[in-house]
Amino acid sequence: MAEKVFDIAIVGGGPAGLSAALTGRIRNKTVAIFEPYGFSAKVQQAHLIDNYPGLPGISGKEMIERMAAHCLEHEPVVIKEKVVNIFPGDPFTLLTPGDTYEAKTIILTTGVATTALLTGEKEYIGRGVAYCATCDGRMYTGKDVAVVSYTAAEEHEVKFLGEICRNVFYLPQYKGDFSHLGDKVRIIGGKPRAVLGAEQVTALATDKEELKVDGIFIMRQSDPLENLLPDLVLENNAIRVNRDLSTNIPGVFAAGDCTGRPWQVAKAVGEGLTAVLSAVAYVDALKK
Amino acid sequence: MAEKVFDIAIVGGGPAGLSAALTGRIRNKTVAIFEPYGFSAKVQQAHLIDNYPGLPGISGKEMIERMAAHCLEHEPVVIKEKVVNIFPGDPFTLLTPGDTYEAKTIILTTGVATTALLTGEKEYIGRGVAYCATCDGRMYTGKDVAVVSYTAAEEHEVKFLGEICRNVFYLPQYKGDFSHLGDKVRIIGGKPRAVLGAEQVTALATDKEELKVDGIFIMRQSDPLENLLPDLVLENNAIRVNRDLSTNIPGVFAAGDCTGRPWQVAKAVGEGLTAVLSAVAYVDALKK
Repeated sequence: MAEKVFDIAIVGGGPAGLSAALTGRIRNKTVAIFEPYGFSAKVQQAHLIDNYPGLPGISGKEMIERMAAHCLEHEPVVIKEKVVNIFPGDPFTLLTPGDTYEAKTIILTTGVATTALLTGEKEYIGRGVAYCATCDGRMYTGKDVAVVSYTAAEEHEVKFLGEICRNVFYLPQYKGDFSHLGDKVRIIGGKPRAVLGAEQVTALATDKEELKVDGIFIMRQSDPLENLLPDLVLENNAIRVNRDLSTNIPGVFAAGDCTGRPWQVAKAVGEGLTAVLSAVAYVDALKK
Repeated sequence: MAEKVFDIAIVGGGPAGLSAALTGRIRNKTVAIFEPYGFSAKVQQAHLIDNYPGLPGISGKEMIERMAAHCLEHEPVVIKEKVVNIFPGDPFTLLTPGDTYEAKTIILTTGVATTALLTGEKEYIGRGVAYCATCDGRMYTGKDVAVVSYTAAEEHEVKFLGEICRNVFYLPQYKGDFSHLGDKVRIIGGKPRAVLGAEQVTALATDKEELKVDGIFIMRQSDPLENLLPDLVLENNAIRVNRDLSTNIPGVFAAGDCTGRPWQVAKAVGEGLTAVLSAVAYVDALKK
């Protein structure tokens, strides 16, 4: 359970999140950054970024290393866990697969919003569609589940489901060796197409077959925002923000790719700064 | 007169302007930056800036030098002249004291808007209040003028007025040696308080006296936006912008301190990037 209430919880450790954390610490607030995958896997893949003023012609990897080092000098708390749910309140509660945290304000820097959802996915969130085995797996003890995964980082979740479920159909959307997942996990080829069901999920349709299941776990680097924070208002597949980067939920701010184009480092860094100054003002107003 | 039409004219060479110019050039557009005073005098004065991610703990001077060098590698045209008026049209026309330029789009990166205008100043713009001796001085040949100046950089303008006017009352709001301005320029102590007049300006009131004059020249590092581009809509003393940094005038964008707080390098750099990508899209749409 939460031991302390952070002033500011930042969900995502890319350029926007690092910029927000840096200025938040300089403004003397307690700051937690939640980033399970290493700082900005996306930027790290860029061979060359030449339009961030002051750092000419360097690789994405070097850029993010410099930004992370600069930010970490100011000692934010880095929590290498994925935030799977946020509950509004005073304070906010953040749920990860293994723990619970509290914060007075939230800054979402989750990257480009996941928009290519499966047909039927959104309708069945909470009625058979889930994103975190540690959180929701127990409900499927002795039952049949399918797991669609776009990342190898969540294979431990699949293994866990193998231990408690009757059948686990695993549809990895990446290449790898899956033998370590155990006998109970059946590797299924093909692409997922649609979530089928009535009151609850009844099957996952792929391009090859229909798998009868009770639950479907979907593992992406970022979950649909509808699942993370259900009341958040989106616009054109991005988080709707005001000029001060506040969202429709008081105390929740957003910055970087998740607020829409342009998907660029300089824009993300600038928004991270503006968002955290708005969050600082929000925290300070709470004290009055 | 203009020899070529720039795709993008950027008014101001601080972090926002340099960021816009950099990405504009990378996107293969012709770009002119108008900056008469050296890149960001304001940032250069900062002893330490520690919240621009990737460049930890450096002076404002070093930061702006690195940004300028990075930008200039990509060869924008730097025009060391002050833009005193912009006339909307297709293309836009930009007027400096000595020349005329044309551009398809405008990005305003003029810094914190000049808001502490003199009492009566705004009402008498064009009716005795002026900001550019080279442009408007001839109208006051043989007449009496007052010059209020907050910067030594415009003393050559004062000297010129001394050559053509009957009396020049000079109110420098900075310290210096003014003997080189010539006998016709009378140095007046005190602070300017109000512009007085009827149909036209009749006097400048200071905290000590009332100077009977036909015209008042006011020299600041940035002129009131009302004078630069009269139809521009402001809000809370900043340029009103949309999320894509467009203003109310099609083809005119704004970025950095002139769009409002926070007045910070990272915010300016991010907005410069977003504004120029919006300008690039605008230019590309013109071709269709």
